[in-house]
Amino acid sequence: MSTAGLVLAAGHGSRLKRGTKALVECDEGIFIDLILASLRGANISPIYVVVGFEREKVEEHLITNHSDVKIVVQEELLGTGHAVWCALKQMEKCDHVVVCLGDVPLVTPASFGKLIRYTQKRDLTACFASMLVFEKNYYGRVVRDSFTNSVTSIVEFKHCDSKQLLIREVSTGVFCFKFSDLKSVFDEYGEYLLNQCREQGLEMYLPLVLDIFATKGMLFDALLFEDSDEFIGVNTEEDLIALNKALNRRRVKKYMGKGVKFFDPNLVWLSSKTELGEGVEIGTDVQIWGESVIKNGVKILGYSYLKDCQIGSGSTIQHFCHLEGLVCGENCIIGPFARVRPNTTFEEGVRVGNFVEVKNSALAKSVKSNHLSYIGDASVGENSNIGAGVITCNFDGFKKHRTIIGKNCLVGANVNLVAPLELGDNVIVGAGSTVSKSVPSGSLAVERAKLRMICDGFRAYWEKKGGLR
Amino acid sequence: MSTAGLVLAAGHGSRLKRGTKALVECDEGIFIDLILASLRGANISPIYVVVGFEREKVEEHLITNHSDVKIVVQEELLGTGHAVWCALKQMEKCDHVVVCLGDVPLVTPASFGKLIRYTQKRDLTACFASMLVFEKNYYGRVVRDSFTNSVTSIVEFKHCDSKQLLIREVSTGVFCFKFSDLKSVFDEYGEYLLNQCREQGLEMYLPLVLDIFATKGMLFDALLFEDSDEFIGVNTEEDLIALNKALNRRRVKKYMGKGVKFFDPNLVWLSSKTELGEGVEIGTDVQIWGESVIKNGVKILGYSYLKDCQIGSGSTIQHFCHLEGLVCGENCIIGPFARVRPNTTFEEGVRVGNFVEVKNSALAKSVKSNHLSYIGDASVGENSNIGAGVITCNFDGFKKHRTIIGKNCLVGANVNLVAPLELGDNVIVGAGSTVSKSVPSGSLAVERAKLRMICDGFRAYWEKKGGLR
Amino acid sequence: MSTAGLVLAAGHGSRLKRGTKALVECDEGIFIDLILASLRGANISPIYVVVGFEREKVEEHLITNHSDVKIVVQEELLGTGHAVWCALKQMEKCDHVVVCLGDVPLVTPASFGKLIRYTQKRDLTACFASMLVFEKNYYGRVVRDSFTNSVTSIVEFKHCDSKQLLIREVSTGVFCFKFSDLKSVFDEYGEYLLNQCREQGLEMYLPLVLDIFATKGMLFDALLFEDSDEFIGVNTEEDLIALNKALNRRRVKKYMGKGVKFFDPNLVWLSSKTELGEGVEIGTDVQIWGESVIKNGVKILGYSYLKDCQIGSGSTIQHFCHLEGLVCGENCIIGPFARVRPNTTFEEGVRVGNFVEVKNSALAKSVKSNHLSYIGDASVGENSNIGAGVITCNFDGFKKHRTIIGKNCLVGANVNLVAPLELGDNVIVGAGSTVSKSVPSGSLAVERAKLRMICDGFRAYWEKKGGLR
Repeated sequence: MSTAGLVLAAGHGSRLKRGTKALVECDEGIFIDLILASLRGANISPIYVVVGFEREKVEEHLITNHSDVKIVVQEELLGTGHAVWCALKQMEKCDHVVVCLGDVPLVTPASFGKLIRYTQKRDLTACFASMLVFEKNYYGRVVRDSFTNSVTSIVEFKHCDSKQLLIREVSTGVFCFKFSDLKSVFDEYGEYLLNQCREQGLEMYLPLVLDIFATKGMLFDALLFEDSDEFIGVNTEEDLIALNKALNRRRVKKYMGKGVKFFDPNLVWLSSKTELGEGVEIGTDVQIWGESVIKNGVKILGYSYLKDCQIGSGSTIQHFCHLEGLVCGENCIIGPFARVRPNTTFEEGVRVGNFVEVKNSALAKSVKSNHLSYIGDASVGENSNIGAGVITCNFDGFKKHRTIIGKNCLVGANVNLVAPLELGDNVIVGAGSTVSKSVPSGSLAVERAKLRMICDGFRAYWEKKGGLR
Repeated sequence: MSTAGLVLAAGHGSRLKRGTKALVECDEGIFIDLILASLRGANISPIYVVVGFEREKVEEHLITNHSDVKIVVQEELLGTGHAVWCALKQMEKCDHVVVCLGDVPLVTPASFGKLIRYTQKRDLTACFASMLVFEKNYYGRVVRDSFTNSVTSIVEFKHCDSKQLLIREVSTGVFCFKFSDLKSVFDEYGEYLLNQCREQGLEMYLPLVLDIFATKGMLFDALLFEDSDEFIGVNTEEDLIALNKALNRRRVKKYMGKGVKFFDPNLVWLSSKTELGEGVEIGTDVQIWGESVIKNGVKILGYSYLKDCQIGSGSTIQHFCHLEGLVCGENCIIGPFARVRPNTTFEEGVRVGNFVEVKNSALAKSVKSNHLSYIGDASVGENSNIGAGVITCNFDGFKKHRTIIGKNCLVGANVNLVAPLELGDNVIVGAGSTVSKSVPSGSLAVERAKLRMICDGFRAYWEKKGGLR
Repeated sequence: MSTAGLVLAAGHGSRLKRGTKALVECDEGIFIDLILASLRGANISPIYVVVGFEREKVEEHLITNHSDVKIVVQEELLGTGHAVWCALKQMEKCDHVVVCLGDVPLVTPASFGKLIRYTQKRDLTACFASMLVFEKNYYGRVVRDSFTNSVTSIVEFKHCDSKQLLIREVSTGVFCFKFSDLKSVFDEYGEYLLNQCREQGLEMYLPLVLDIFATKGMLFDALLFEDSDEFIGVNTEEDLIALNKALNRRRVKKYMGKGVKFFDPNLVWLSSKTELGEGVEIGTDVQIWGESVIKNGVKILGYSYLKDCQIGSGSTIQHFCHLEGLVCGENCIIGPFARVRPNTTFEEGVRVGNFVEVKNSALAKSVKSNHLSYIGDASVGENSNIGAGVITCNFDGFKKHRTIIGKNCLVGANVNLVAPLELGDNVIVGAGSTVSKSVPSGSLAVERAKLRMICDGFRAYWEKKGGLR
């Protein structure tokens, strides 16, 4: 049996203030692109899109990106029922038609399929997807007969009385119709319905057609979908946030299904381009943005922000890390309180610890920099140990310079390496030294004055300051 | 038509352990003050308050702050119905009376108005505000006739059977009555009701009056309010937390309506005195406390705590910042991992980066301090650059001293500036120097010993330590 | 009256991928241990456990740890009804039997008791615990007669039609039966039921027995439990996370009841072995793990991670702290941005501030280390002040050494203390010094070169660099 698709994308999105809603972008793409992909995924064809508000923009987008789609123009924006009527005048004959909304972009092909099959199997004139929403919401309420429990109508939120507002089953706006029934009803009653709505100052909502079906004894039903995330409709910024959170939940669930362990799935944010490997563990308040790849067995313990990072297998990101543009090898240990800036690479087994900043640098295998350091515009060779408080003085007030540190070096605490500078392999720099010349391999460099001890210095100091504390 | 207000504030707040609930303080004020302001906002007058538990305190508060309010004393605390009865004996004649509770402080004037109009329009004897609560709760359940769906009674939580507990529509405790009906019913049945309750060991709840209305054929109804936040009642610390969260949500929503972008509105905390400008963007886990002003276009990226801060237009607060008492100009970039303590000012274009602490200091235009520094009791002139690891040694063990740094200075890495100290304009201090005298403008100061290089030092060092590692 | 217990622990836990579910461990123990403890707590005896999947493991666990329990083997895993039937063949006569599930581990003794009493008081053949679940869920729906509101059956999730899916009241799987009725029905209909299920390719679910009760006119009912946390069943990793969150909520609520103040109870994590004293205050995003003891009046302001810590009365943990294995005395102030590693003790009144790391060290009374320091393998005597940027150079590239600092010392900024090293009491070390020898008590030690000032240095520097910036 043939099933056509009809996307209602003519309405304006005034409360959202982002132009026509079909072209709004969420974390995983532009609404209309997502909808069309899903309809195609359910083998729904041909697909018609009703345009109206900002129609040139939508048409241009469709023509450029979706040449298979047929465009229907709704000249006057008189409501969803009117939009369907406009389309019916142009549509070719088919068995069923799925009607969906340009601001409800997350419906899956599986759900479209389920709705179609349900409609076909029961030979219904119409079936719509319903869902349960327990928070305050503005969806149309599904009114059911209290005896038979069968659907009698959909009442738009603003026309609900206090008792109808109690109803938690709402319409998602996604319908499947038997094409011939829908067409014959609109052919016969379209004009009448429009006039009636005009008289009462109402929009010509699509659900009103159910009332005609009812009087004509045509069968219709609601099919409840338990996953209301799929049917989020976007009218406000809040809705858009909710939609993006739903997408994030989907991604998190996908990875949970693959065995990734999340401490609290509600407090994790994964970008659409994040990839997580097997056995990954992620704590609370972790955000992974951009194009990040987190390989097998990585642990990200919590309170951390990553963007455009590749983290190698078996590495651990301890708490409170801020990492951008890091390419990190296997079995590294980073943080807590580490900050890495773009264009940085860590080879296998690197350790970067607390209050350490690394920027535009390459740390070779097993390099350690565990405390309170700034490593900028540097390369550090295998196995070198950067002491606490070490600073690469990369900026001379004029431009940035590089620091090159060889293998197996030991750079003492609070050392300043004034770039441009090269330490060879096997170099030791004594604590507290400021080094502004390159140091050849194998050398020990130290800049230090003589230590003076003033025996009675403590008493003298306090006397000078005005008395013992 | 005249509408009086009646606030029931006589009950004790035993589970909350904060004294009488009418005087409990939430983030936006004292309960009774909020309630009275809202009643006045709905043009409800005169207002009566029933006092009982800790009545002297409440009376004193009312006399001092709300001289327009009429006080009713409930001598014995026999329940909300009894409280209303006590009040009716003193109240002047009016058309309607709104009854509300001293521990339900967030009802808006608009909702009071809606309830009154609904009651008047339908000429009801009584109407109460109902709401839907899906979590576990202790509110009275609204029982409706299963055929007509009309309200038959309110059953107190502790008297509900297992089937009534299933009901999710609950009474908020806010009623509107036709005064004459209410008075005549209490005149006639008050004594009877009280005796009956006493016999059964029950409190004389106000909703019991609905049963009398029912037997007498007087009409009443529930009006459903979708925003249950307004009707939060406070019995426990948990409820008070929920109330403050609701207030926070209100503030967040207010700013969303004004175009502020929140990444996740549930993970943001704004104090009642926080002001956010246009185009502000706020990430997750951001708390803004005290009297803070966040100007147009500021971005606060996430995981940050601000208290009593003014952040100038176009500035960015990167992740993991802890800022208190900062007055910050335009286009500054702060963090990540920055900590600012009170009495600090940043002029336009300042940058304070990771692991930097600034306290009681003034940083002039375009000052940069990007890494691992402590700037305390200092002033830094325009355009100066504070290197990584720089410490203002403001404490001599005895008292604090100031450091004054001029314009256009370049202070090298790991420099110690021993206060009291002044660097003139255009001063350069070499990395690793400890400076304990003032440095005149234009000078370069450096404290550094000769760098010694020991050619074979690496081998010698390891031999001394007991062998190459 | 005698009440036996029957735990159904034969099913396999395929989706959870952690072996048989009865042996799965949550934050407060192994499921079957929790269940058995609760049944015993409700004086339910004897207790039978039906084993099947991985039965050797379960049997071994029971024999080792629960010798009082009687084991029933379900040879073929044909469903919960079949499991009960198997058990009935071995059970001794009793008045009632409580049936519960091996993957529903949090039911309290009080709830078991309530269910038993309800069943007895109404002389029911069966009563089961129901709950309300508003999110998407896979529990069996409780179908009630729309007129009388009495329970007619439980429909398994996968057999629900679209209308039954709307039902929010679900079965928890916990039943109380009159033993004689249950036994007689299974004696008579067990074989019939099993055959019917086999024919239809269904599992022999326990709730099917209700249909037989119904046809025979035996009374049964559902008892609604408002706290659905108790009845969480674990089928997936998500469920296990939800269960652990529920346990955490229980712990948080317990402490709220004892007067601990939480800013947001949903954003706090307490391990099962954490103890909180009176008057403790805990902000958002605080995690307390391991065996931690937080004494009276401690404030933990927010965004902090603690593991295995003891925090003394009156101490404050400021924001962004990462503390492991700290034993801290009274009235200490720690953070923000402090990191403490294991084997560290702070005596009374210690202050450790921002960007300070302390590891394996003992800080005596009133020691201060407020900024940007690393204190590792050290002991610091009473009243000593560690300046900003101070590093204990505990690692010589070969092994770790200790630093001992006496009482009342003043260690200047950016000082390096090269361990092994001892500073006596009353020692002052000048800022910027590197000290590699021990310093006797009362001495002032300083390592510093002569400060050179080059008058025209600023101009000369920029000329060398290629021009004034």
